[in-house]
Amino acid sequence: MDKLICREFTPGRRFMGRLPHGKDIIGVIETFCKENSVRTATFSLIGAVSAATLGAYDQKQLVYVTFREKAALEILSCIGNISLKEGSPFVHAHIVLGDEQGKVIGGHLFSETVIFAGEIEIRELTGPRLERAYDPATGLALWAPGV
Amino acid sequence: MDKLICREFTPGRRFMGRLPHGKDIIGVIETFCKENSVRTATFSLIGAVSAATLGAYDQKQLVYVTFREKAALEILSCIGNISLKEGSPFVHAHIVLGDEQGKVIGGHLFSETVIFAGEIEIRELTGPRLERAYDPATGLALWAPGV
Amino acid sequence: MDKLICREFTPGRRFMGRLPHGKDIIGVIETFCKENSVRTATFSLIGAVSAATLGAYDQKQLVYVTFREKAALEILSCIGNISLKEGSPFVHAHIVLGDEQGKVIGGHLFSETVIFAGEIEIRELTGPRLERAYDPATGLALWAPGV
Repeated sequence: MDKLICREFTPGRRFMGRLPHGKDIIGVIETFCKENSVRTATFSLIGAVSAATLGAYDQKQLVYVTFREKAALEILSCIGNISLKEGSPFVHAHIVLGDEQGKVIGGHLFSETVIFAGEIEIRELTGPRLERAYDPATGLALWAPGV
Repeated sequence: MDKLICREFTPGRRFMGRLPHGKDIIGVIETFCKENSVRTATFSLIGAVSAATLGAYDQKQLVYVTFREKAALEILSCIGNISLKEGSPFVHAHIVLGDEQGKVIGGHLFSETVIFAGEIEIRELTGPRLERAYDPATGLALWAPGV
Repeated sequence: MDKLICREFTPGRRFMGRLPHGKDIIGVIETFCKENSVRTATFSLIGAVSAATLGAYDQKQLVYVTFREKAALEILSCIGNISLKEGSPFVHAHIVLGDEQGKVIGGHLFSETVIFAGEIEIRELTGPRLERAYDPATGLALWAPGV
């Protein structure tokens, strides 16, 4: 595989919503998707958190290294997608956070990351089944090579 | 409220445009929305600024702390939404900026943030009225709990 | 020009795909667009890189200053657009990268920036021809003033 291989989708439902204060970002998005039968989607989110668990992938050891911030931080950007993993809607998202001096940190988004306030746009996609499977080259759960 | 509560929208007009050199980001977007009757939308923007006013929300004092950067910076990401506040189109956006060494700052976007160059995609949404109102739990103007 | 001037587009095809390990981000997106006749689009991308070439525009000298990072970094955000430059699909994108401590850098995305893994959403737009041309005020190749 040396090209960008894409599958084509049709725009589905478009949702705008407010995230609940004090809850986990990933948990609330995955619950929403299960309850509303959203199997494939992309989303964008801005807001603020009161604590965050972030990580980065160690490309040699093939494991995620995580770290936790217990601080009030703005969500400067949180973009991600929803696809299926073991048959259930699964969130993959990366987040950028900033403090009161404008200092920025970021990483792969993990639970528990606690919402202070947040506004999300979810763009559903309908079409082929997009399911994650183990990829030996990276050790990650990626979409199948034919996507 | 302990769930993500969303309202469903239908995609409206899709705009691509170039921001005017030397003007304020929020001002030009809000003026465009008023003149084109855009009540609800999301947007993404990249480009560069010659000065920026950013902030973060103090989650204990319930006030925004702002700071100003008078520097030439790339807009690495600026994502946000447009909804109604006191009946008029209102921009809520967060921005990430970078300098020539790749150093990054970011925050809640305030006026005056001066465009050097910028390219924006505005994705209009049609559907229910999305209006901001005072939220006592956070002190912010958020969309109503039922969204 | 002191206003945001936009052109209106119609949503076209929507693609979700996985970027090839070890290849250049801009190269694979531009090749995909050429092969699939995508002339205008926006995209969002998350993932990781094994090396990156970034830059920022020097607003006085009117040249890009670039720098190179040879490190494993998460793509926290990469948003951009595709339009025509000299008749071919051309990527304009900005990227935010993070390391295992959450430290963040970012800039205008240049080749060679090498994919470790990546997931992209491409949102095609159909409508007027969006072509870049030299802009004397900034020295950049921007969309025509009437956009």
